[in-house]
Amino acid sequence: MLAEFARERNWESFHSPRNLLLALVGEVGELSETFQWRGEVPQGLPDWSADEKEHLEEELSDVLLYLVRLADVCNVDLGEAALEKLRKNALKYPVDAMKRS
Amino acid sequence: MLAEFARERNWESFHSPRNLLLALVGEVGELSETFQWRGEVPQGLPDWSADEKEHLEEELSDVLLYLVRLADVCNVDLGEAALEKLRKNALKYPVDAMKRS
Amino acid sequence: MLAEFARERNWESFHSPRNLLLALVGEVGELSETFQWRGEVPQGLPDWSADEKEHLEEELSDVLLYLVRLADVCNVDLGEAALEKLRKNALKYPVDAMKRS
Amino acid sequence: MLAEFARERNWESFHSPRNLLLALVGEVGELSETFQWRGEVPQGLPDWSADEKEHLEEELSDVLLYLVRLADVCNVDLGEAALEKLRKNALKYPVDAMKRS
Repeated sequence: MLAEFARERNWESFHSPRNLLLALVGEVGELSETFQWRGEVPQGLPDWSADEKEHLEEELSDVLLYLVRLADVCNVDLGEAALEKLRKNALKYPVDAMKRS
Repeated sequence: MLAEFARERNWESFHSPRNLLLALVGEVGELSETFQWRGEVPQGLPDWSADEKEHLEEELSDVLLYLVRLADVCNVDLGEAALEKLRKNALKYPVDAMKRS
Repeated sequence: MLAEFARERNWESFHSPRNLLLALVGEVGELSETFQWRGEVPQGLPDWSADEKEHLEEELSDVLLYLVRLADVCNVDLGEAALEKLRKNALKYPVDAMKRS
Repeated sequence: MLAEFARERNWESFHSPRNLLLALVGEVGELSETFQWRGEVPQGLPDWSADEKEHLEEELSDVLLYLVRLADVCNVDLGEAALEKLRKNALKYPVDAMKRS
């Protein structure tokens, strides 16, 4: 879907892997800015206004969209890769060992 | 699923929003390192070895997993937020205007 | 000097290490955006306009200023630390070995 | 000095602006990792061990060294640029207005 979105807009020539990677870094920067002057933030963001939450949702989305598009131009099946990584993590960090530590 | 993964391992107390954000930044740094000394990289990564591609898949996955977990502890529905962002982008960058520019 | 700049503006309470770190990440994101859609860029930036170069100078400066301020609130002498790191790098990567490789 | 360090090791051909930028992002990721699971950290890092502080000093230095080298290959005088940015910031955020806010 994102590939089509880019193709329809003649953006494909800009979507080289490193261009997209730098765009991703840019979005991670914007995401960080939403958290930067707040000190520690509790789970669930109880003190954030509706506007602040909507802005956060946009920044999280921008990171996701560039990440998906980057994986796409790298011919990586991101969903499959993430499941495989979860399997590796489950073996690397077994529940029992983690509970004991 | 990631919430359960963290809970089973007693990692929940570490998973504050800003802890997860910094972990995400750390993974984006590792992702960047896979591209750092290569000059421009063509789409599809034709010259990458199987090991290099597997390493890339792991780094892309790590970014995704922390992003999903960060959205989770912020009570953000990342899938819905990303779809909403795509709708906004489609309005902001209509196909015809982009083709003309 | 930056400490004084912050103190005079009552910014000190915002300048916790992790707040400054996230601000640094934000600036690195802005720096990345200046390079993001350009493909490979040659040394010296021959094709950049005066405005683009001035914008780049500002972004590089913002990264430096937050880095210096972050080191400051961590009680790290950044100049001394960087010299020490150069000494370590010179031992780790001796000139002759690097020339042969 | 960093230019000479790179030249003596035949690293110059790797030191394109975007290669160095991605290396900088990688180092910012490592810097973030030193802070990632700690929750809020007070100024001066009172609870950090000597090893942890030394590791932090190295990561801060790595960010600085790549930043200086990136500015270098962009023909930017980073010291002058940072002073200019401080002058602009002093005009943009005058002491009195900040104290009142």
